[in-house]
Amino acid sequence: MGREVIKMVLEDEALELVAAVDPSAGPVDAGIFAGGKQTGVTVSSTLEEALSSSQSDVLVDFTVPQAAYNNTRTAIEYGVRPVIGTTGFTPEQITELDELCKQKGIGGLIAPNFSIGAILMMKFAAQAAKYMPHVEIIEYHGDQKLDAPSGTSIKTAELIAEARQELKQGNPAEEELIEGARGAYYNGFRIHSVRLPGVFAQQEVVFGGHGQTLKIRHDSYERAGYMPGVNVAVKKVMTYSGLIYGFEHIMD
Amino acid sequence: MGREVIKMVLEDEALELVAAVDPSAGPVDAGIFAGGKQTGVTVSSTLEEALSSSQSDVLVDFTVPQAAYNNTRTAIEYGVRPVIGTTGFTPEQITELDELCKQKGIGGLIAPNFSIGAILMMKFAAQAAKYMPHVEIIEYHGDQKLDAPSGTSIKTAELIAEARQELKQGNPAEEELIEGARGAYYNGFRIHSVRLPGVFAQQEVVFGGHGQTLKIRHDSYERAGYMPGVNVAVKKVMTYSGLIYGFEHIMD
Amino acid sequence: MGREVIKMVLEDEALELVAAVDPSAGPVDAGIFAGGKQTGVTVSSTLEEALSSSQSDVLVDFTVPQAAYNNTRTAIEYGVRPVIGTTGFTPEQITELDELCKQKGIGGLIAPNFSIGAILMMKFAAQAAKYMPHVEIIEYHGDQKLDAPSGTSIKTAELIAEARQELKQGNPAEEELIEGARGAYYNGFRIHSVRLPGVFAQQEVVFGGHGQTLKIRHDSYERAGYMPGVNVAVKKVMTYSGLIYGFEHIMD
Amino acid sequence: MGREVIKMVLEDEALELVAAVDPSAGPVDAGIFAGGKQTGVTVSSTLEEALSSSQSDVLVDFTVPQAAYNNTRTAIEYGVRPVIGTTGFTPEQITELDELCKQKGIGGLIAPNFSIGAILMMKFAAQAAKYMPHVEIIEYHGDQKLDAPSGTSIKTAELIAEARQELKQGNPAEEELIEGARGAYYNGFRIHSVRLPGVFAQQEVVFGGHGQTLKIRHDSYERAGYMPGVNVAVKKVMTYSGLIYGFEHIMD
Repeated sequence: MGREVIKMVLEDEALELVAAVDPSAGPVDAGIFAGGKQTGVTVSSTLEEALSSSQSDVLVDFTVPQAAYNNTRTAIEYGVRPVIGTTGFTPEQITELDELCKQKGIGGLIAPNFSIGAILMMKFAAQAAKYMPHVEIIEYHGDQKLDAPSGTSIKTAELIAEARQELKQGNPAEEELIEGARGAYYNGFRIHSVRLPGVFAQQEVVFGGHGQTLKIRHDSYERAGYMPGVNVAVKKVMTYSGLIYGFEHIMD
Repeated sequence: MGREVIKMVLEDEALELVAAVDPSAGPVDAGIFAGGKQTGVTVSSTLEEALSSSQSDVLVDFTVPQAAYNNTRTAIEYGVRPVIGTTGFTPEQITELDELCKQKGIGGLIAPNFSIGAILMMKFAAQAAKYMPHVEIIEYHGDQKLDAPSGTSIKTAELIAEARQELKQGNPAEEELIEGARGAYYNGFRIHSVRLPGVFAQQEVVFGGHGQTLKIRHDSYERAGYMPGVNVAVKKVMTYSGLIYGFEHIMD
Repeated sequence: MGREVIKMVLEDEALELVAAVDPSAGPVDAGIFAGGKQTGVTVSSTLEEALSSSQSDVLVDFTVPQAAYNNTRTAIEYGVRPVIGTTGFTPEQITELDELCKQKGIGGLIAPNFSIGAILMMKFAAQAAKYMPHVEIIEYHGDQKLDAPSGTSIKTAELIAEARQELKQGNPAEEELIEGARGAYYNGFRIHSVRLPGVFAQQEVVFGGHGQTLKIRHDSYERAGYMPGVNVAVKKVMTYSGLIYGFEHIMD
Repeated sequence: MGREVIKMVLEDEALELVAAVDPSAGPVDAGIFAGGKQTGVTVSSTLEEALSSSQSDVLVDFTVPQAAYNNTRTAIEYGVRPVIGTTGFTPEQITELDELCKQKGIGGLIAPNFSIGAILMMKFAAQAAKYMPHVEIIEYHGDQKLDAPSGTSIKTAELIAEARQELKQGNPAEEELIEGARGAYYNGFRIHSVRLPGVFAQQEVVFGGHGQTLKIRHDSYERAGYMPGVNVAVKKVMTYSGLIYGFEHIMD
């Protein structure tokens, strides 16, 4: 993920790479480290070294939950805005980090999901459900996935259920000739989980009304799909004060 | 349906309308009866009248099961090839009508489904299952439909199961967080039934393999979807002898 | 369209049919006129007759541009909120009708498009373009349509162009082996028009980004697709003062 | 590609890995070379070495055109069936290799495209065009692709044009408001090329008829998509004599 972030920064003329951290990389050029050209920025082995030797505006961190809290605190102490793609923060930690950000007058973001497409899909699904309350979700994942429905589809279903009027869809006298045909029941509507080899992650939210259907579909092909979201976050975090949790809250 | 057949014949220069039958229409021009222009052909009140007063090659019949057997016999006696879109024939009746056709040296067709798109979808699904055995079916119908899965999806599933090697798909340790998420189990794979207002009839057969998916999708918007199939049948029935049951058997 | 409105009102318990107008229908029951059951409401031959003999809250008008302005004025004079599905109003007329509404303290709505699904598609497309600026539009209509691209796709393209950063998509060295392959150029992106028999009106807006795509698709099967939008409008118009132009402006 | 072939062979119990060739790999175990477990088969540095030291039934070759002809000849001399995924053979070479195969009484296959899904899509498109002649193709590739339409879409269009009756689609009075909207014209129908980041290779062939549409869609996510086709070929090549060109000709 670190390499993807370096590449994203180097590809955007509005951004400048001033430091990079990897405890095990050694003193290599950050551009070379990311599989690209020489940049003049050497990878640091600790966060403190990176922050003290550069004039950073923003820190992007995709490490593990154990490290993320301390990294976030350290960044804020240096007046560097944290953009964190790690889960596992407690509500108390988030409140504390929010206060620290405000004291420094800087913004910050913690987000478990940076996939702009997936977040837009969920957002649009909730908006549409207000006007077209008849809806079903079909989600597709690889055939080795263990759980069904997927986490994203359940999250989408929750947002839909909050947004729409209460409604029990379908014919009350409906009958399943083969058990399970109508999918998983959630708050009046249905979720269907397709599992096939060759699929990474896809979801389709279908709304039906008089003589029309509206579909919102997100196809995800690989993990690099997070970078456009990180790009937005890095710019947005310069414009406010305090720590925000959840990428959807920095979207207009 | 009769009106649709008249329109279809009039729109195709390779075909000629020579007679039309409706017991209750009165002696009206057949083109006017179908909502179009004057044709010079008057609607007859009985089949015998129509057949005896014209040089017909083919009879198209979309009446009820009670009338269809007698109509088919009558047509064959006049040497007119029957194209019948009615169900309810017994195997004995079909054998008998086949022999009568052969004696006269003419072709005939009885087909419960003339929707070329739906038949092609089923045919392609069975062919693909030989090479890409991982498959799921998603079918969409209006929200007032009583049974799930649909008749067409079960028919498709049967054809797939016949064509492919035996295979139990998915992770054996798979778990449904909400019951029914993984759909209806059929011979190792799954069928999902979506029910939404605004939908008439749609079906998607999705095959997954290494790094790829193949989809075959049929969308049906209205009952007029039968006419292209009737058009093919009317021409094909001129080229063979005997009675064929099932539209798929006159396709190459 | 009048019949569809009557049916929609009768099907919603939150609404009550108190009058109906058709100059040529004669004094028939409005429910019978719409192909349903007796309602006790007789169709009036003029708008004044209908408004003076009933306690109407809202007037729904799908007449022609020539009649719509006068009908709207008349309704406002009676204190009845106009919901108008007709185009052809001048900006001066709209300003004047807005003032009349405000004087009476009532709401009103004029909207060229009441299809909620189509409006949501356009709205979501514009929102998504801010975050995923790489986009193309594919629209599908019947094969007899004369103009390409469709009006809806051009309107969608305008909204996208307003919302997103300036961007010329694709490889600058791109070459068309067959002219027209890359579609219609609009402000840096492309619109593709598919024309096929059997299609009524469909549109797909596809956004692409790192490792992902987002699709918003609207399928329209028939003209009855306007009624859910009229239903929303009839309720919403009770909650504000002044005349609003464009259905999207009464959506949250 | 060689690694992918080794993995495919090791995953299928019906197949056995008996040799592997790579001039630069050194004497490493073939399973380790492919990123998996020990197999007991050492990678050979030349084809002759591999063929003379093993009892091979089939050779799979994904090398370059310069090497493929000689490799194919060598395999046939050893009585080993060639399955070749390389282009650039001349018609004379193919005729000669076919005769050599027949002399040895063995089968062989040369195929420029082993993607089963793509081949099925083309095959089904041609079959459907006989019955539903109204068709358009929409193909999607990454935004840096130089040529439009894609090679696969042109190949598909050729197969459709051969299969269907001659037909110039669309309204003759049709007018493009923006040039190119109707796509690339090919033999009476249209091809549309969409270019977006995040897309690898997708194609949709859409057929329209009275009240229905039929879609055949192939989505390709990565190059590993060739292996299921190679698996089929390796088994099929055991069952006939002579050299076949084109994967579609070994499908039933």
